[in-house]
Amino acid sequence: MVGGTVQGDATAVVSAVAPLDRAEPHHLTFLANARYAPLFAARTPGAGVVLVAPALADAPGHARARVVVANPHDAMLAVLPSLYPPPAHVPGVHPTAVLGRGVRLGADVAIGPGVVLGDGAQVGAGTALDAHVVLGAGAIVGDACHLFSHVTLYPGTRVGHRVRIHAGARIGSDGFGYVYRNGIHDKIPHVGRCVVEDDVEIGANTTIDRGSIDDTVIGAGTKIDNLVHVAHNVRIGRLCLLMAQVGIAGSVRVEDGCVLAGQVGVAGHHTIGRGARLAAQAGVFGDVPAGETWSGYPARPHREALRAQAAMFRLPAIIRGLERLLRTSSGGEA
Amino acid sequence: MVGGTVQGDATAVVSAVAPLDRAEPHHLTFLANARYAPLFAARTPGAGVVLVAPALADAPGHARARVVVANPHDAMLAVLPSLYPPPAHVPGVHPTAVLGRGVRLGADVAIGPGVVLGDGAQVGAGTALDAHVVLGAGAIVGDACHLFSHVTLYPGTRVGHRVRIHAGARIGSDGFGYVYRNGIHDKIPHVGRCVVEDDVEIGANTTIDRGSIDDTVIGAGTKIDNLVHVAHNVRIGRLCLLMAQVGIAGSVRVEDGCVLAGQVGVAGHHTIGRGARLAAQAGVFGDVPAGETWSGYPARPHREALRAQAAMFRLPAIIRGLERLLRTSSGGEA
Amino acid sequence: MVGGTVQGDATAVVSAVAPLDRAEPHHLTFLANARYAPLFAARTPGAGVVLVAPALADAPGHARARVVVANPHDAMLAVLPSLYPPPAHVPGVHPTAVLGRGVRLGADVAIGPGVVLGDGAQVGAGTALDAHVVLGAGAIVGDACHLFSHVTLYPGTRVGHRVRIHAGARIGSDGFGYVYRNGIHDKIPHVGRCVVEDDVEIGANTTIDRGSIDDTVIGAGTKIDNLVHVAHNVRIGRLCLLMAQVGIAGSVRVEDGCVLAGQVGVAGHHTIGRGARLAAQAGVFGDVPAGETWSGYPARPHREALRAQAAMFRLPAIIRGLERLLRTSSGGEA
Repeated sequence: MVGGTVQGDATAVVSAVAPLDRAEPHHLTFLANARYAPLFAARTPGAGVVLVAPALADAPGHARARVVVANPHDAMLAVLPSLYPPPAHVPGVHPTAVLGRGVRLGADVAIGPGVVLGDGAQVGAGTALDAHVVLGAGAIVGDACHLFSHVTLYPGTRVGHRVRIHAGARIGSDGFGYVYRNGIHDKIPHVGRCVVEDDVEIGANTTIDRGSIDDTVIGAGTKIDNLVHVAHNVRIGRLCLLMAQVGIAGSVRVEDGCVLAGQVGVAGHHTIGRGARLAAQAGVFGDVPAGETWSGYPARPHREALRAQAAMFRLPAIIRGLERLLRTSSGGEA
Repeated sequence: MVGGTVQGDATAVVSAVAPLDRAEPHHLTFLANARYAPLFAARTPGAGVVLVAPALADAPGHARARVVVANPHDAMLAVLPSLYPPPAHVPGVHPTAVLGRGVRLGADVAIGPGVVLGDGAQVGAGTALDAHVVLGAGAIVGDACHLFSHVTLYPGTRVGHRVRIHAGARIGSDGFGYVYRNGIHDKIPHVGRCVVEDDVEIGANTTIDRGSIDDTVIGAGTKIDNLVHVAHNVRIGRLCLLMAQVGIAGSVRVEDGCVLAGQVGVAGHHTIGRGARLAAQAGVFGDVPAGETWSGYPARPHREALRAQAAMFRLPAIIRGLERLLRTSSGGEA
Repeated sequence: MVGGTVQGDATAVVSAVAPLDRAEPHHLTFLANARYAPLFAARTPGAGVVLVAPALADAPGHARARVVVANPHDAMLAVLPSLYPPPAHVPGVHPTAVLGRGVRLGADVAIGPGVVLGDGAQVGAGTALDAHVVLGAGAIVGDACHLFSHVTLYPGTRVGHRVRIHAGARIGSDGFGYVYRNGIHDKIPHVGRCVVEDDVEIGANTTIDRGSIDDTVIGAGTKIDNLVHVAHNVRIGRLCLLMAQVGIAGSVRVEDGCVLAGQVGVAGHHTIGRGARLAAQAGVFGDVPAGETWSGYPARPHREALRAQAAMFRLPAIIRGLERLLRTSSGGEA
């Protein structure tokens, strides 16, 4: 399966994976980095099978068999689906589910306990909605999707095919828009939609608002982590990665292939150019050109930010001398 | 309806709104800024009706009719409620709802599937509780409120009139308070309440803790975005705006009319004075005087923070010269 | 009960607690700090009983009785459980709960409305699962736990004894792991578990991911606030405190007794040493030695960060002089 060379007992059988320091004879494990060789050496009787990098093929340690492969980590990932088949998809509609008028269900859907489908909602073939998922009126979910427990789709939300939405995510909620008049914050109606394209994954408890007039769009193949906030009218391109707790303000454009690390914030109406990368906690208050890496607060090109930070930390050591110097200098000028 | 001047076919009928670049003949759209004129020019056959600013009344483009108005964006907002009436409020108690002992329901409440009302909970007239909302024992919700799906009110929480709470918000959870003694973090009981006054809106998956002894209070007319955290004993005044992912530590006072932009954090026990504004990602470790705008980490008055940041980014270019100068200078003194 | 000395009417009876400025004759309150003495003086008829520090025993104010104790705040906490007994634990399985095959329930469990227990899930003796809690297949919860409404445990999650998990927390969700190949972000299967040890408390809407191959572990006695994110393979030690909106990236180690203040972020694969403290909003991009306090962005030892920040804010006032000086100096050298 992994195209490697077997050393030892080629009949060894494993039924699960484990890291080196917990591996037992029924486990498959891997050793890719010399840093972890001591864990391998220390464990006895050790794993059933260890996937090992060529340079470490003779590292001391215990295992019924070693399989030498160019990249043990990739080999491990290739084997995982065989050892851990995804849970069976059991089609059916649980008797406690509540279906509105005009709901349309595709073939082989799996609708869990307590699921609520609003009037006119649609669920595509082979899609699973776990317990207590709520689809608002007219919400549409494509084929082969998986919505985990407690997900809410607000009315009119559109989700493509092969989308995974984790527990507690809220998709299509009203944007945060008010006009201050007559002494109150008067709510701006939000009549745009939230559109999630194919092959997107959305993390637990993440929130994505609907558009005000235009739509909020999450592009195909983009992956979003937990507790991320995406505001109204934002357009995220294809194949982006948004890590945990990122916050994106209204009407921002994130072009294809961008990576936003954890806790990044992007202020409203800016554009993050194609393939740009933002370091963790960056605070972005302007446009970021395509292909660049920015960091810091306020965010700047990464090298510039690093130089400024380094200078800042050297500053206290010299600032007293500077002040003395300035006094002398201005004194001399007087 | 909008007090404008019609040019073109005054019989044009529209049934929805759309942005300029997606507008079709059944759409109403608007053109307020010359920047978007090319979108208008490029679209054919174009919208049914375009609301257009006087300066752009003759901009090239296609539409059955133009309505010239002083402020096309405001005019659009004024028209929205006619085109998108809010979903009908259908009173009734869904048969799958679970009502505790002594629950009191006002006239015309709409209680959705799977709603759970604890003993002694009260729901005011005309209020809608969407699917799976859970009200703890003794929780009280006023009139004409809307709690979206999966909202939790902990026991004893009080919510005023005309309050909207979005999906997954948790109101009245225990505050994060422990005393370290006998080798453990011993939990401080939280017996205060969480009080949400009239006309408040609270975003999806936001959390607001109850007070320890005193109450946590959200003042009338205040609007809170998604994924915000408000800790125990916090008092937020009237008509504040708290944007997404703001975090407010225990016992903070936020006076009336403050604006906290996204991802702002406020450390415990400080006061944000009336009408103050905090820029996105600001980290506040002290009191902020009324009416001021602060930013940065640690937060300072905005102008001061901007000057410091600008200086920081100019620093690397001069710091090498400075160090040489200091060496020379101190060498000269030796 | 509090070992104090009574002054005034020893027969005064109280049934609730309140802060000084809201105390009525049926209330117990406390005065520990001279700063709050004016609130005490201003209130009439005042509390039934005030717990008062020795130095303030004769502070002017109204109350039927004063009890002089060394530490009024601690005394108040000691009395709270008598005045506010926790809500009665009512064992039973609500008829709307949905139990999978092979579910095992301990003695005296309280299973609320709409709870869904996956195949093979286990719930320990005396544990309460509030409304709409969902346990995935094979999830295990120990004895005397309390899971508040809408909590999700993903399949295979393990929770120890006396654990409290607040509303909407998601435990054991897939980690955020992809390999970019063939033009897509290919999902890495997550087959590790999430293990929550004894006496942990987890806040509302917090998310904790399962491990990829190894487990994610939350150590015994650790307390986690609301809206915190803990990524895959993270190991958090015993007796840590993680405050609201903290984010911890993949494979981080947080050793025993650490304190992470609000909105702290820790980048992947680093170690926070035993007993270390991280100030609010700190951005940690390296290992933090045991026992140290770090702050800032990027985080540094707290004193160093404070010095750098102070220097940064003094910088604009001197930087113009510096630049002039450098021009002069380099001019002089030419």
